[in-house]
Amino acid sequence: MFSKILIANRGEVALRIMRACKELGVKTVAVYSTEDADTYPVQYADEAVCIGPAPANKSYLIQSSIIAAAINSGAEAIHPGYGFLAENADFARACGDNGIVFIGPSPECIERMGDKSEARETMKMCGVPTVPGSDGCIDTVEEAQEFARRVGYPVLIKATAGGGGKGMREVHHPNDLEAQYKAARNEAGAAFGNDGVYLEKLVLRPRHVEIQVLADDFGNRVALCERDCSIQRRHQKLLEEAPSPALTDEIRRSMGVAALKAVRAVDYKNAGTIEFLLDQDGRFYFMEMNTRVQVEHPVTEQITGTDIIKEQLRIAAGEPMSCADRAPFTPMGHAIEFRINAEDPDHDFRPCPGTVTVFDMPAGPGVRVESYVRAGTKISPYYDSLVAKLIVYGQDREEAIARGKRALDEFVIEGIKTTIPFHKKVLENEAFVKGDFSTDFLETQMGDASNG
Amino acid sequence: MFSKILIANRGEVALRIMRACKELGVKTVAVYSTEDADTYPVQYADEAVCIGPAPANKSYLIQSSIIAAAINSGAEAIHPGYGFLAENADFARACGDNGIVFIGPSPECIERMGDKSEARETMKMCGVPTVPGSDGCIDTVEEAQEFARRVGYPVLIKATAGGGGKGMREVHHPNDLEAQYKAARNEAGAAFGNDGVYLEKLVLRPRHVEIQVLADDFGNRVALCERDCSIQRRHQKLLEEAPSPALTDEIRRSMGVAALKAVRAVDYKNAGTIEFLLDQDGRFYFMEMNTRVQVEHPVTEQITGTDIIKEQLRIAAGEPMSCADRAPFTPMGHAIEFRINAEDPDHDFRPCPGTVTVFDMPAGPGVRVESYVRAGTKISPYYDSLVAKLIVYGQDREEAIARGKRALDEFVIEGIKTTIPFHKKVLENEAFVKGDFSTDFLETQMGDASNG
Repeated sequence: MFSKILIANRGEVALRIMRACKELGVKTVAVYSTEDADTYPVQYADEAVCIGPAPANKSYLIQSSIIAAAINSGAEAIHPGYGFLAENADFARACGDNGIVFIGPSPECIERMGDKSEARETMKMCGVPTVPGSDGCIDTVEEAQEFARRVGYPVLIKATAGGGGKGMREVHHPNDLEAQYKAARNEAGAAFGNDGVYLEKLVLRPRHVEIQVLADDFGNRVALCERDCSIQRRHQKLLEEAPSPALTDEIRRSMGVAALKAVRAVDYKNAGTIEFLLDQDGRFYFMEMNTRVQVEHPVTEQITGTDIIKEQLRIAAGEPMSCADRAPFTPMGHAIEFRINAEDPDHDFRPCPGTVTVFDMPAGPGVRVESYVRAGTKISPYYDSLVAKLIVYGQDREEAIARGKRALDEFVIEGIKTTIPFHKKVLENEAFVKGDFSTDFLETQMGDASNG
Repeated sequence: MFSKILIANRGEVALRIMRACKELGVKTVAVYSTEDADTYPVQYADEAVCIGPAPANKSYLIQSSIIAAAINSGAEAIHPGYGFLAENADFARACGDNGIVFIGPSPECIERMGDKSEARETMKMCGVPTVPGSDGCIDTVEEAQEFARRVGYPVLIKATAGGGGKGMREVHHPNDLEAQYKAARNEAGAAFGNDGVYLEKLVLRPRHVEIQVLADDFGNRVALCERDCSIQRRHQKLLEEAPSPALTDEIRRSMGVAALKAVRAVDYKNAGTIEFLLDQDGRFYFMEMNTRVQVEHPVTEQITGTDIIKEQLRIAAGEPMSCADRAPFTPMGHAIEFRINAEDPDHDFRPCPGTVTVFDMPAGPGVRVESYVRAGTKISPYYDSLVAKLIVYGQDREEAIARGKRALDEFVIEGIKTTIPFHKKVLENEAFVKGDFSTDFLETQMGDASNG
């Protein structure tokens, strides 16, 4: 195992990684922006190095500063968390060039899966089902029209370099195609410096179901069951659960097999997630692979009894994963994660940065909190608005929902608006309680017209 | 299920029961002493009734006040928690006489198991192994001497009405017998109003291992694996874990079978615990049965995925337990509970009541906290000194220990002394880490001469 690693991130995920390190006896180096100087993860780390001011492109995205901090502190490896440099192949390569282990897959895997149209092609070749889509990028409006006529409306325009819903547009009618096509390219260019887009058949009322995988240098490849992340707003996940209320054991098994095919095809190592669309008839289609740990990984940890961050460290250190002998996994109980954001759900989820004056966490059975926040923490406008993740688990979905209500009621956050009231409403919603929902849940059930 | 119940307790267990009720949709009535008026459980309950001042014999032990509060508030049942009236058969009977369900076993079971020498006889009759002991009470020094000569020293003198180590004396040499016999009777008389004592062969270097059981009206009887509670000081448990590092699958199975024999023999219903002594050769002997939920029940919940308090409510309401179809249970992972008391471990565990000024709970994966304390809570000198229970769990004992260290480091309690530093030392102790310890751990490993 490593003796010291650097965490190239901030907030809850930085703390999550440091906790895993502490339990493994690995020393930690935090890097932080001046904006984050007073936050708990910076105090929690064994060492901390300031790498510049906010916003992220002056600190958390400056590869050279981070690598210099690793070298100067004697860190043997870097954990990138999620976001920032987590799926940046150049950064992974730069780590390797400097003799530092990047805790994640190889740069080649990141590249291959990061290019969304190449990833689709790879999946098609190894027999993983994909949504009918264009072969590679679509460079003109005419090509786009031709494709849409062929597979039929509605269609989805997606940025090949995409992520987080940016450069993504639904088109339900031929008249809208040209405008949406141009808008998607513009948005993709601005967000990623790459305006390539491709088209897919839009699956109606799909669920977003993803498989967590782990693979190590010893030939162990395991699927840690699925997560259902259908409760989204503008392609941003708000609430995730495991297992999915929509999956039969048979679909779970074949989805796991498909995910491991993908892992084998690209010789993927470390933790990753294969995202699928699940249609109303139980068919599923590869959507994309995330070559990093996900925000929602805790729900999988709860129903499989694993620690995904520790497994990442073991795999990166050249050790076998510790959970291989427990595969194949079947879900034990049920877990739900609530993303508690500094946003006002009554006003279009407008970000509400500010200072937290009271932060009283829920506790008791079946409750886990992942948060870097304390009373007095300033939620910065420069970063994502995630304040805390509340994870609840129980022997079945009914108990997890009841526990979620109880824990959300106990959670007191003052000084800022949060999405706690939104989550309480979700748990009261009949369609949610029945498990009968898809990615259009916010529009159809919560009256959120801005979604989609 | 009940629509409203009264909780005849205080502190962490009152809150624990209220949380379970909230998740089941059951309204709660708190009863409280003036000393506890400002505590969190009193605010947490749907209704709260003051039943008198401290100490407990002016409030929490006054049966008539509690039953009146239940009648006046329309509560259909009373949960007694642990301690106070939890093992008081008269109280259980008074509940029934007033049309209120006592959430626990029948008064007859409480009585039969509460009389320690009768309980031993019952166990012997149904084939559960017991430590060689006197047949019933020993009324003279001469009888005691005769018994000790027969089974050989060392012997243990125990109060027949005993509990919590009161009226209990070890005798290692014939010369000490008379004095210890008299001291035990005096102490028992003062503590329980009953100075009956009996003698047992003292098992050397035993472990304290107990089986959690549940039984309902539908013939379901399950053993929820074991807890190892060998880390004790003066017969008071300090740290408990599940499963026991000393148990093989075979011993676990036969101990579970013995526990269920006992349950069947007395037609026991609801949650209970059969305590065994485990000797160095893997033989076990019935010690006593606790006819209530135990302080250490959470470790069992973690490794079995059950909620014991909810099962108690279901059983008392005449429903089947929800976990019967998962029996027989095998432990999933490993859990450890640390009792964090307001005591000074550097000064003979002297109680340290006072006001908590800072109370920052640990969080993250595998961490559960059960506590009624908030910053500003006054720890009263009138009640037991339990401030919080920290429960950690992981995929194996090694991970649970690492997590325990991490979580104890994160736990910040200021304003009072606590046993956190003691627990940190236990986790560093080589014998503990190896799992090689018995009830003499404090004397032999921690240099606590006052133990025993």
